[in-house]
Amino acid sequence: MNKIIRVNMTAEKITVNPVPREYRLLGGRGLTSRIVFDEVPPEAEPMGLDNRLVIAPGLLAGTAMSSASRLSIGGKSPLTRGIKESNSGGTAAANLAQLGIKAIIVEGEARRGDLHCLYLGKEKAELHPFPHALTGAYESADFLRKYYSEKISLILIGPAGEMGLSAAGIGITDPQGRPSRYCGRGGLGAVMGAKGLKAVVIDPEGAGRPGYANREAYLKTTKELVQLLRDNPQTGKIYPLYGTAIMTALTNSMHALPTRNFSSGTFEKAENINGESMRSLIEQRGGAGRTAHACMPGCVINCSNVFPDAAGKEIVSPLEYETIGLLGSNCGMGSLDEIARLNYLCNDLGLDTIETGAALGVAMEQGLLSFGDADAAEKLLAGIFDNALPGRIIGGGALLTGRILGSRRIPVVKGQAMPAYDPRAVKGFGVTYATSPMGADHTAGSVIRAQVDHTDPGPQPALSRGAQLNCMIVDCLGLCLFTLSALGAHLDKVAALVKHLTGENYDEDILAKTASSILALECDFNRRAGFGPAHNRLPEFMTKEPMPGLGTVFDVPDEALDSLHARE
Amino acid sequence: MNKIIRVNMTAEKITVNPVPREYRLLGGRGLTSRIVFDEVPPEAEPMGLDNRLVIAPGLLAGTAMSSASRLSIGGKSPLTRGIKESNSGGTAAANLAQLGIKAIIVEGEARRGDLHCLYLGKEKAELHPFPHALTGAYESADFLRKYYSEKISLILIGPAGEMGLSAAGIGITDPQGRPSRYCGRGGLGAVMGAKGLKAVVIDPEGAGRPGYANREAYLKTTKELVQLLRDNPQTGKIYPLYGTAIMTALTNSMHALPTRNFSSGTFEKAENINGESMRSLIEQRGGAGRTAHACMPGCVINCSNVFPDAAGKEIVSPLEYETIGLLGSNCGMGSLDEIARLNYLCNDLGLDTIETGAALGVAMEQGLLSFGDADAAEKLLAGIFDNALPGRIIGGGALLTGRILGSRRIPVVKGQAMPAYDPRAVKGFGVTYATSPMGADHTAGSVIRAQVDHTDPGPQPALSRGAQLNCMIVDCLGLCLFTLSALGAHLDKVAALVKHLTGENYDEDILAKTASSILALECDFNRRAGFGPAHNRLPEFMTKEPMPGLGTVFDVPDEALDSLHARE
Repeated sequence: MNKIIRVNMTAEKITVNPVPREYRLLGGRGLTSRIVFDEVPPEAEPMGLDNRLVIAPGLLAGTAMSSASRLSIGGKSPLTRGIKESNSGGTAAANLAQLGIKAIIVEGEARRGDLHCLYLGKEKAELHPFPHALTGAYESADFLRKYYSEKISLILIGPAGEMGLSAAGIGITDPQGRPSRYCGRGGLGAVMGAKGLKAVVIDPEGAGRPGYANREAYLKTTKELVQLLRDNPQTGKIYPLYGTAIMTALTNSMHALPTRNFSSGTFEKAENINGESMRSLIEQRGGAGRTAHACMPGCVINCSNVFPDAAGKEIVSPLEYETIGLLGSNCGMGSLDEIARLNYLCNDLGLDTIETGAALGVAMEQGLLSFGDADAAEKLLAGIFDNALPGRIIGGGALLTGRILGSRRIPVVKGQAMPAYDPRAVKGFGVTYATSPMGADHTAGSVIRAQVDHTDPGPQPALSRGAQLNCMIVDCLGLCLFTLSALGAHLDKVAALVKHLTGENYDEDILAKTASSILALECDFNRRAGFGPAHNRLPEFMTKEPMPGLGTVFDVPDEALDSLHARE
Repeated sequence: MNKIIRVNMTAEKITVNPVPREYRLLGGRGLTSRIVFDEVPPEAEPMGLDNRLVIAPGLLAGTAMSSASRLSIGGKSPLTRGIKESNSGGTAAANLAQLGIKAIIVEGEARRGDLHCLYLGKEKAELHPFPHALTGAYESADFLRKYYSEKISLILIGPAGEMGLSAAGIGITDPQGRPSRYCGRGGLGAVMGAKGLKAVVIDPEGAGRPGYANREAYLKTTKELVQLLRDNPQTGKIYPLYGTAIMTALTNSMHALPTRNFSSGTFEKAENINGESMRSLIEQRGGAGRTAHACMPGCVINCSNVFPDAAGKEIVSPLEYETIGLLGSNCGMGSLDEIARLNYLCNDLGLDTIETGAALGVAMEQGLLSFGDADAAEKLLAGIFDNALPGRIIGGGALLTGRILGSRRIPVVKGQAMPAYDPRAVKGFGVTYATSPMGADHTAGSVIRAQVDHTDPGPQPALSRGAQLNCMIVDCLGLCLFTLSALGAHLDKVAALVKHLTGENYDEDILAKTASSILALECDFNRRAGFGPAHNRLPEFMTKEPMPGLGTVFDVPDEALDSLHARE
């Protein structure tokens, strides 16, 4: 990866630049956060001229390593108003890497009303007009694949991003061309929309594997690591069988499954929406349905799926745990069919399902619609296509929705909705939500697999800090978070991949130091953007309202939260 | 004033306490901010249990001094999320002072759905149920006057406050019983609503003037100061003739009159909505119309008015400059009749006209309704009575409105809308908006009368700081801001009033030190509530988009803003 594509949307000008020395060993979140730190004034208006949208494949993207081609997208978030990185699987990162593209930096903004595609091919980078404003993401992807080639990868926003809604994410196409792998969090779709960029079209024609500095060593280490993935019960067995939906039964048993706007941690219909039920339904319905589906070529974990309707016709792919938790139990919905339809609609609109589910949960509690009313939720969301106000409110995210509707129970940190682990039951997640520069985000420091008493506040800060650093490590490399259960104890070998790929001196220590320094950059950006200790807090109701059946509130002391990133 | 009334709404319990030594020489904003600082955790949820609503008459309230009976209300603001004080004229402060009540502290919250009145009479303090939820403020005031007595003063919220809308203010009755003097800013009406308190009913039966320590000296000094008020051209001539509307012509000539969501500083219909036109209309229409109306008994300034319709029937009283600027020119409305009708509706709903006008301006620019369409605006606002979503959005204030509608031109600081002085044309106001702990608020540091080049960034920080301290001084005393043009050079005599009233050692130096220390408290509260330098900024568009016809942007350097309150 030897070039950085810089696109000035105001001037409609593209420049291709070599990779500066100091960026060479950065990738994924490491690179997006570094470039945002270097180029975006922390006080910049997220929807304004001075913000950047930065896209970077992980350091190992496009190589032979399994589960290593995740794509990071960064910028200043219109949702958190701080630095943000959101990453996703799909095929874009590998194709970018194989075209030698280390990063794309989008700056300025197009003339109001204009929409563009950035077309990237072998030695080609052009802006093309996109003539179909406010078209759903699926139809847009179909159009672009027909117009350019079936082989392209897409980085694509839906109407929500074009309309500047703060819950707008960015879809990445999977191997079959669905724009349904999501850089969902932080409203970066709205930043892309504000720049007038509908899609990045990546044409892999003529691209090839990156040149390995030491091919033999790379492939040998890859083989060892892939074997670890295959042998691990999570990555080798559970995920391919049940997908991430396997989490439902676990969190429900822990009182951690968000239910009816985080008013309970157990859901009476949890059995209908757990991994076993999903697997049975997919198998029983057949047709287009698939378990063990890969979001990127060559992934051996295969946690994805294709969820079909009763006639075997695809409703959505994938159907994931966070969506089940937020659009499902948190909205009082106990039917996978309903959740899958809402998921498809969110994808088509280009909305983050977590933020949308949390916003709907707040709206339901405040009486805008009823818990469990999937038809009303679908109608409300579909109204976004017509710029209807109720849809715009939900699309603005949980915080705006709650403020407008007068809620005092808004499950957000730094303006961003919590994912599907109630922090009163899994307090380590509470620490991550509170202290991560990313806002409430499970992928910024996942602790669910730790062998601790999750309701004991004591061990949580150290646990979360370690998890935040580990998540940073995988986010820099482009590795899937799920690899950590198998590879977390083998980061020396993982780091060796970077050495074998680049020929540079690189080891586990450098990897850890990089993670720590990027986390420090992010914290520093946020500090200058206006964040202080008061922003490292969970919403008041979670510190006062005990979790029913468990009796716990979130009680990790403020001092422990405040000192967590002192070392960064 | 020898007692503090503490009302716990959760327990429905009232305690009457003596005034602690350290509060004795504090009044108005000085006392509300001190109590908020002492009792409210800076990170508290403004709509939650831990916030307080604190009501305090100014130090000189209820005495023989003219224009000195303003009422301060404080708390943590749901709009700015920082400390807030909002003050108003009307009759409540004098009556509270004459009942010996130094402050009312409202804590806890009533059972959801319950609404109470706090009845305060001579040696009496009781909570009574208020049975008419969501009734307009005018009808509620009529009901309460009929139920208790025609003589009562009211501190009253409308449906907006009951519904928790962040732009909800608190109405205070004038001498004729209209609940139309406004503690408008900061959404404190929503805090009062969250506590389940509809009104404070103050029954002056049996109350008398406060005991003066040195009556003769007090009355003599008062006489001198009143003469200064009478002799000053502003307070003695201009205000009684034209009211605050006199400002329209001045700001329009300076390119500072907010027009169509702050996209211009001059309005083509400014002549229709200036002080001269208002005066002519009132005189020509006769009937209920009045110029030179007093908002509190004994005020010699008489800046208020009663604005009648063509048949001489009262539309609203008063009609003020900030309302004209925000609901008028900023919404493209050039008819005083239209503005007056919207003003009445805001009062009846219990909404701040500044925040509402700014929110409407943003909504008009984003196409939710058209600039100048008064009927649409009236319909939209009236929808709040029916809990309609568009109304709730506007009632949420300019920031929420802008975020929901995707605006990048939201004229707020610390979440609060700017009043009617564009900070690109009057940069000293920009400094006040940026740096005041109150958020964008003209009454927190008015510089409009200063003899400087208002577009030169150089002198503005020092000018604003002086103005912020002067405003604090009058806010502590209960003096009307307008007295400053006559009395600003005689603060020694003003301070002497405190000495003559209380018998305590008090002078101009103590007054100035108190002002500075309260400003420091407020800044410290905000810092711990999460505010840093990044919050002391104007919205980006005002630093990038030159004022048409003037060519200036707001360009007071960040460093000057950051260091402004370093001494506090």
